[in-house]
Amino acid sequence: MSKKLTKRADDYSKWYNELVVKADLAENSAVRGCMVIKPYGYAIWEKMQAELDRMFKETGHENAYFPLFVPKSLFEAEEKNAEGFAKECAVVTHYRLQNDPDKPGKLRVDPAAKLEEELVVRPTSEAIIWNTFKGWIQSYRNLPLLINQWANVVRWEMRTRLFLRTTEFLWQEGHTAHATETEAITEAKQMQEVYATFAENFMAMPVVKGAKSESERFAGAVETYTIEALMQDGKALQAGTSHFLGQNFAKAFDVKFTSKEGKQEYVWATSWGVSTRLIGGLIMTHSDDFGLVLPPKLAPIQVAIVPIYKNDEQLTAISEKVAVLVKGLREKGISVKFDNRDTYRPGAKFAEYELKGVPVRIAIGNRDLENNTVEVARRDTLAKETISQDEVVAFVQNLLVEIQEHLFTKAIDFRTAHTTHVSTFEEFKEAIENKGGFVSAHWDGTIATEEKIKEQTKATIRCIPNDAKEALGTCVFSGKPSTKRVLFAKAY
Amino acid sequence: MSKKLTKRADDYSKWYNELVVKADLAENSAVRGCMVIKPYGYAIWEKMQAELDRMFKETGHENAYFPLFVPKSLFEAEEKNAEGFAKECAVVTHYRLQNDPDKPGKLRVDPAAKLEEELVVRPTSEAIIWNTFKGWIQSYRNLPLLINQWANVVRWEMRTRLFLRTTEFLWQEGHTAHATETEAITEAKQMQEVYATFAENFMAMPVVKGAKSESERFAGAVETYTIEALMQDGKALQAGTSHFLGQNFAKAFDVKFTSKEGKQEYVWATSWGVSTRLIGGLIMTHSDDFGLVLPPKLAPIQVAIVPIYKNDEQLTAISEKVAVLVKGLREKGISVKFDNRDTYRPGAKFAEYELKGVPVRIAIGNRDLENNTVEVARRDTLAKETISQDEVVAFVQNLLVEIQEHLFTKAIDFRTAHTTHVSTFEEFKEAIENKGGFVSAHWDGTIATEEKIKEQTKATIRCIPNDAKEALGTCVFSGKPSTKRVLFAKAY
Repeated sequence: MSKKLTKRADDYSKWYNELVVKADLAENSAVRGCMVIKPYGYAIWEKMQAELDRMFKETGHENAYFPLFVPKSLFEAEEKNAEGFAKECAVVTHYRLQNDPDKPGKLRVDPAAKLEEELVVRPTSEAIIWNTFKGWIQSYRNLPLLINQWANVVRWEMRTRLFLRTTEFLWQEGHTAHATETEAITEAKQMQEVYATFAENFMAMPVVKGAKSESERFAGAVETYTIEALMQDGKALQAGTSHFLGQNFAKAFDVKFTSKEGKQEYVWATSWGVSTRLIGGLIMTHSDDFGLVLPPKLAPIQVAIVPIYKNDEQLTAISEKVAVLVKGLREKGISVKFDNRDTYRPGAKFAEYELKGVPVRIAIGNRDLENNTVEVARRDTLAKETISQDEVVAFVQNLLVEIQEHLFTKAIDFRTAHTTHVSTFEEFKEAIENKGGFVSAHWDGTIATEEKIKEQTKATIRCIPNDAKEALGTCVFSGKPSTKRVLFAKAY
Repeated sequence: MSKKLTKRADDYSKWYNELVVKADLAENSAVRGCMVIKPYGYAIWEKMQAELDRMFKETGHENAYFPLFVPKSLFEAEEKNAEGFAKECAVVTHYRLQNDPDKPGKLRVDPAAKLEEELVVRPTSEAIIWNTFKGWIQSYRNLPLLINQWANVVRWEMRTRLFLRTTEFLWQEGHTAHATETEAITEAKQMQEVYATFAENFMAMPVVKGAKSESERFAGAVETYTIEALMQDGKALQAGTSHFLGQNFAKAFDVKFTSKEGKQEYVWATSWGVSTRLIGGLIMTHSDDFGLVLPPKLAPIQVAIVPIYKNDEQLTAISEKVAVLVKGLREKGISVKFDNRDTYRPGAKFAEYELKGVPVRIAIGNRDLENNTVEVARRDTLAKETISQDEVVAFVQNLLVEIQEHLFTKAIDFRTAHTTHVSTFEEFKEAIENKGGFVSAHWDGTIATEEKIKEQTKATIRCIPNDAKEALGTCVFSGKPSTKRVLFAKAY
């Protein structure tokens, strides 16, 4: 905490990396591309998990757990999915180590313990889960099957960044099976809606809901629904996806059911997931040059109380007042930390809570005791106010709501200011290069055009927004006819 | 659910395997030795996790997350630990698959994507965590460091059984660092106590707290504290262990701290864990020939309500009464399922809840409506009682407490009846072979004697009980002097 953070304007990427480490959220590990999630970062993930898990259960899903490993023969069964992930797979080939005869005290892989069939460390679990679903589904009575799993997955990424792209990451993956196509599509869209609600109401991170273009779809999906957020550097972040998988996996794993009419039919499928990447999105949406800014609903500590005292007598008097305050706040369900460590000075504590994004900081000193007041500082605006001790609980309760709303409004405003409607490719390039953010443009619907735009601008189609209006126009690149605008951006 | 369960007396092992599958708890997967934990089994694990997590946090621990993979060079750093787990390690050697040129549509491991250093899939995380702790600990101010992780681990076991011993399993592993030996030992013992409290108060599973003999210690530990439970077939189950690791890992990973006196000292360590194995213990402690019996505190559904009706009009009238009942029960924090499925008959529903161990079943039919009653059946004793609808909420609330207590008392009585104090090796063999259970005997403290006893009886030392009284005696096998009795048993 000794050195100051790099400023966002100077080097956004460096600012992010420094912030993640300095705020004690995560760090790189001895394993290439894998991170250690530190207690403060993990506490945010636990808060996210709790809300998402509640939302999944309220929509009828149950949790289960499937194996970490996928035998190669199952992994390759759904060809498009296998092809999409083959290049990123960590593979277990042996099941034993032995003493290395050449190096005393060292181990080596035992060549005699080679697996007959290699095991892929799951990059996603459709294969192992659909192989299991085959045994669970016989009749329409077994449908819908609504399963979620909290798990770790591994994708061997070439370039990694803490939270945003790591070789191993934590996520949830929902996998559902349905009797009809309509029902499966409704489910996939419902989960997109759940993710959007979570992002906006808890993370205070506005998202655009839409569908992916063909080239950006999940490998093996018929349709991919996405939520796309905009970061402060003008780059988009794919924050969650929900896939309608058609009958692709049912056919690959031969999962049929007997319909009410007694016919054998293939099952319809969805899958959907969000990951620890959300923490990266949370950081980049709200934080500033002073450190992390956390929305109150996901802050592990909502209120930090710092005593300012010169001697033990003063600390005792302050502590008595604080005890009452802590009790009052906790009764309202507010998480509070009274930081009475005597190894740090108030200034260092202020800096720590600023860096760690604690939404509200309360300071109480000798003069406050005399005046029956406290000083309340909010992290989002850095504004301070002196409040009567009698009113502070109600004040803080309202303030937390206000901060949550303010962060969301600010992020919405940023996005509005950084969404540009363009008609020509010159305008397109100008917006992408100089302003950043989302660019709304007509597109002719072809992969070829999408690729050329990407080559020339590094911008990709983030989504075809759900609320895109039908409006005739001409493709910003090819000049061919188009029926709706899509959203482009450079992306993480 | 069509076929009846094998009876425990006929084949306990078969009864267990059938029960786990029929009660929808778990099943074997396509991956050798790995299980799928089904929603009902996972719901029990979630209840266990919630309570344990609360207890860990109340004792000052924080959750974090460390990589799944351990580079071989780190894995082998603490030699005893590495030696203990080397034979059970799944090893990742490659990071990419490619199309198999000989088999169209199939994949093979890309020989060009061989890792320079192999990665061990964690069988336990001391190595990767202590390598990380090195960066977190500089001064006594950083201590104690009290970390817990919820994770999956992999141990390549030759013989596996659902929940009890699986290649991959879910667990929590606590890892703590301390300034002094005394503090670390106190921590290890405290966590043994937390585990015992959880086992007895929530699982209703009595445990003996004790220390492991040298040969049964965790690889790399100075002392292993254990909780040992007794299953209905007279075999013991090691249900949780807490290790005092001395300075072994601190030395292997060079983790030193500056003491208050300014000296550089090695850190003292503990680690402790419980796993999904606990679910196996829960099943085997309480269940009977009719199916699962769950203690109310860990039952995903505490009360199942089954309507008995002949027509829609009756169902409507019953449903109205049930709505009031459900509301009343939920207000008391009781989890209730009203099973109004019209695809199953009451008899089938009764059988299902019996098999699934739901603690309380309520049936309500037309005559009950007339009499303002319901029928309440308890799963543990199978007793039924007719109760006034006005009193049923309070009755059920008390009944759940009573069932929890009754299960614990019954298990204690079983253990008492199956704990034999012996003085001679003849008595020892007689008890182990014919009666089963714990055998309390004097032991000379040598590994040689322990091994010979194991060879001749298959019984191992489960623990040296914490409350073992100092009492001079002679070893039951060697006749040499002994100062206390230890507990032997055949074990899972």
